Amino acid sequence: MLRVGYPAILAPELLRGFPPEAELIPLPDDLEGEIEIDVWLPDPYPTRAMRIWPHLRGVRLILSLMAGTEWISAVAGPHVTISKARGAHNISTAEWTIGAILATLKYFPFYFEVQSSGEWKRRFESPARYARITGDERPIYPPVMVEELTGKRVLLVGHGEIGQEIERMLAPFSVELVRVARTARVEPAVHAVSELDSLLSQAEIVILILPSTTESHHLIGARQFALMQQGTLLVNAARGPIVDTDALVEALNSGRIRAAVDVTDPEPLPEGHPLWKCPNLLITPHLAGSSPQFAPRGLKTAADELRRYMSGEPLRNVVQAAV
Amino acid sequence: MLRVGYPAILAPELLRGFPPEAELIPLPDDLEGEIEIDVWLPDPYPTRAMRIWPHLRGVRLILSLMAGTEWISAVAGPHVTISKARGAHNISTAEWTIGAILATLKYFPFYFEVQSSGEWKRRFESPARYARITGDERPIYPPVMVEELTGKRVLLVGHGEIGQEIERMLAPFSVELVRVARTARVEPAVHAVSELDSLLSQAEIVILILPSTTESHHLIGARQFALMQQGTLLVNAARGPIVDTDALVEALNSGRIRAAVDVTDPEPLPEGHPLWKCPNLLITPHLAGSSPQFAPRGLKTAADELRRYMSGEPLRNVVQAAV
Repeated sequence: MLRVGYPAILAPELLRGFPPEAELIPLPDDLEGEIEIDVWLPDPYPTRAMRIWPHLRGVRLILSLMAGTEWISAVAGPHVTISKARGAHNISTAEWTIGAILATLKYFPFYFEVQSSGEWKRRFESPARYARITGDERPIYPPVMVEELTGKRVLLVGHGEIGQEIERMLAPFSVELVRVARTARVEPAVHAVSELDSLLSQAEIVILILPSTTESHHLIGARQFALMQQGTLLVNAARGPIVDTDALVEALNSGRIRAAVDVTDPEPLPEGHPLWKCPNLLITPHLAGSSPQFAPRGLKTAADELRRYMSGEPLRNVVQAAV
Repeated sequence: MLRVGYPAILAPELLRGFPPEAELIPLPDDLEGEIEIDVWLPDPYPTRAMRIWPHLRGVRLILSLMAGTEWISAVAGPHVTISKARGAHNISTAEWTIGAILATLKYFPFYFEVQSSGEWKRRFESPARYARITGDERPIYPPVMVEELTGKRVLLVGHGEIGQEIERMLAPFSVELVRVARTARVEPAVHAVSELDSLLSQAEIVILILPSTTESHHLIGARQFALMQQGTLLVNAARGPIVDTDALVEALNSGRIRAAVDVTDPEPLPEGHPLWKCPNLLITPHLAGSSPQFAPRGLKTAADELRRYMSGEPLRNVVQAAV
C-alpha cells in the first residue's frame, strides 16, 4: 500500500478526497526516529517541514501546497519528484495585490492614522502628501485626497498563473498593462526580462510576481529604483530576495518611490530592521496566500495528483522531476 | 450674454471647454453684495457653496459637480433647475469601495499596527481575530491571516451609476451579487428596497450606494444590524444619515459586525465621537471621490450640459426641474 505522510495538524476532513487505496500517515511535529513513506505532503511552513524531512525515508514524490518550492528542492535534493498545488494561492495572492495597490493609492495607511487621532480635518494634509509623492505640484481644486488606479501604467513582472490572475482582477480598471516574464511571448504580448530596465521608467506601478531563482535574485536594485519615475509604486507579492533590501530602504527613505510588500529579505524581518520604519510603505508579514480557502483548494489538487500517480498517469503539476 | 458664475479657486484651464459665448465670472470666496448670474457652478464643498448662494441673483440653472445634490435643492429651493455632473465621482468612489472591502478582508488596519510595532510574529494573532469576527471557530491549518472576497455574498443597495460601476469592478471576484434599489427591476434583477430586511441575513457584505432621501434616512438601524449575520461587513460609500449612527456604534462595539465608511452622521465627525474608537471599523473622512481626475471629468460634463442649455437642446443630467 502506498504510504502518504501528511502534517498531523491538518484537519482530517480535508483529506477525505484522497484515494482510499493510499495509507494516510499523520506526521506529528515532534516526529522522532525514521519513518518509511512514499509520498510526502510537507507542512506549508518551511521551518516545520524542514524539521520533519530528516526523519523521512523512501520519499519518491513530494506534493507541495505552496506556490514557491525553491526551499523544498534545496532540502530534498534532485532524487525526488516535486509537484506543487497549482492554484491554491492564486486567488488570495492576487486579491492581496489589488488590495495593496488600492490601499496605497487611497492613502489608507495615512487615514488609519487620522482615524486613530480622531481628527477629521487632518484630511487636508492629503493634498501635500499627493504633491510630495507624485511630484505633481499644480494647484488642484477640489483638494486631492485619493488617487485612482484606473488608467495607470502597470508593469506586471511575472506572468505565471498568479500573474495572470492579477491581470484578470486588474481588467475593470482599464490599466495600460505591460507584461514581462523570463522569456518573451507573442500572444498575449510578453516582454523578456532582459528588457526590464528600459520598461521601468514608463511604469506607475510595478508588480513583482515571479519565482525566486538565481536569475531573479536582486532583479530590482539601486539601478532599477533610479530608473523609476517619482512616486512609482513597487508591489512585491513574490519573494523577498527578488528586491535588494538595502536599495529598497534607500529608495523609500529618499521619498522617490512607494512600496507594498508581503515578503521581505530577510524573512521574518527582524525587530529593529530599518525597513519597518520606511515612509510610503505597506508591509504585511507574508500572509497574502493564507486564507481559509487555501488548504481545501490545495489538498483537492494534491488528491487529484496523487490519484494520477497511483494509477500511473502523467502528473500535472511537476516542478522537479526526479533524476 | 449668458453669465456663468464659478468658484474663483478653480484652475482656469479646467474651463477651456466651456462655450466661448458664455461669460465666465469667477466668484471669490469672500464675495460681497449681490451679483447677477444665470448659471451657477457651486463649489463642491457645501459649506463654501452655501456662503456664496445668498449673494447670487437670477440663477436659473445650477450645474453641480457632485453626485449628491440634496443640499443644493434644500438651499436653492424649487425655482431653479439643477443638473449634476454624472460620472465625475463614479470611478473614484467605486475604487474606494473595492479598496475598503479588500483592506477589511485582508486585515490591513491590523497589519498597519503590526508594521508600526515592528513585530513580524504578531501575524499569529490573526487566526484569533478571524475566529472572533466571523464566528468560524474550527481549527484551521495553516493559520488564517486574510479572508477572500471571491465568492462572497454581496448585497448592493443602490443601483445608480456608481452602484453599476461597483458591480463592474466586483466582476473578477465572482461574488454572489444581490441588487436592491428604490424600485424593483427585471433585467438585471433588482429587488425593491422594501425587501431589504429579508435579504440582509444572507449577505456577507452590504454596500450602501443610494441617494440620501427621507425614504433612505436610517435605512440601516438597530433592527437591520440584528438581522445581519456575525461578521457582516457594512460599507457606506453613500451618505451618513442612511445609517443610524448610534445603532452602528452599538453593533460595532458588540463585535457582531464590521464596517468601512467614507461618510458619517454627523459630518464632520466631531473629536471624541464614540464612532472613532469602534473596533473592526475603517473610517475615511469623506474623500472617496476626491481624486485628481474629479474636476476635469466633472467640468467636461458641465461644459457639455451648458452647451446644450445655450443651444436650447434638452439637458441630459437634470435632477431637479425648475417649477
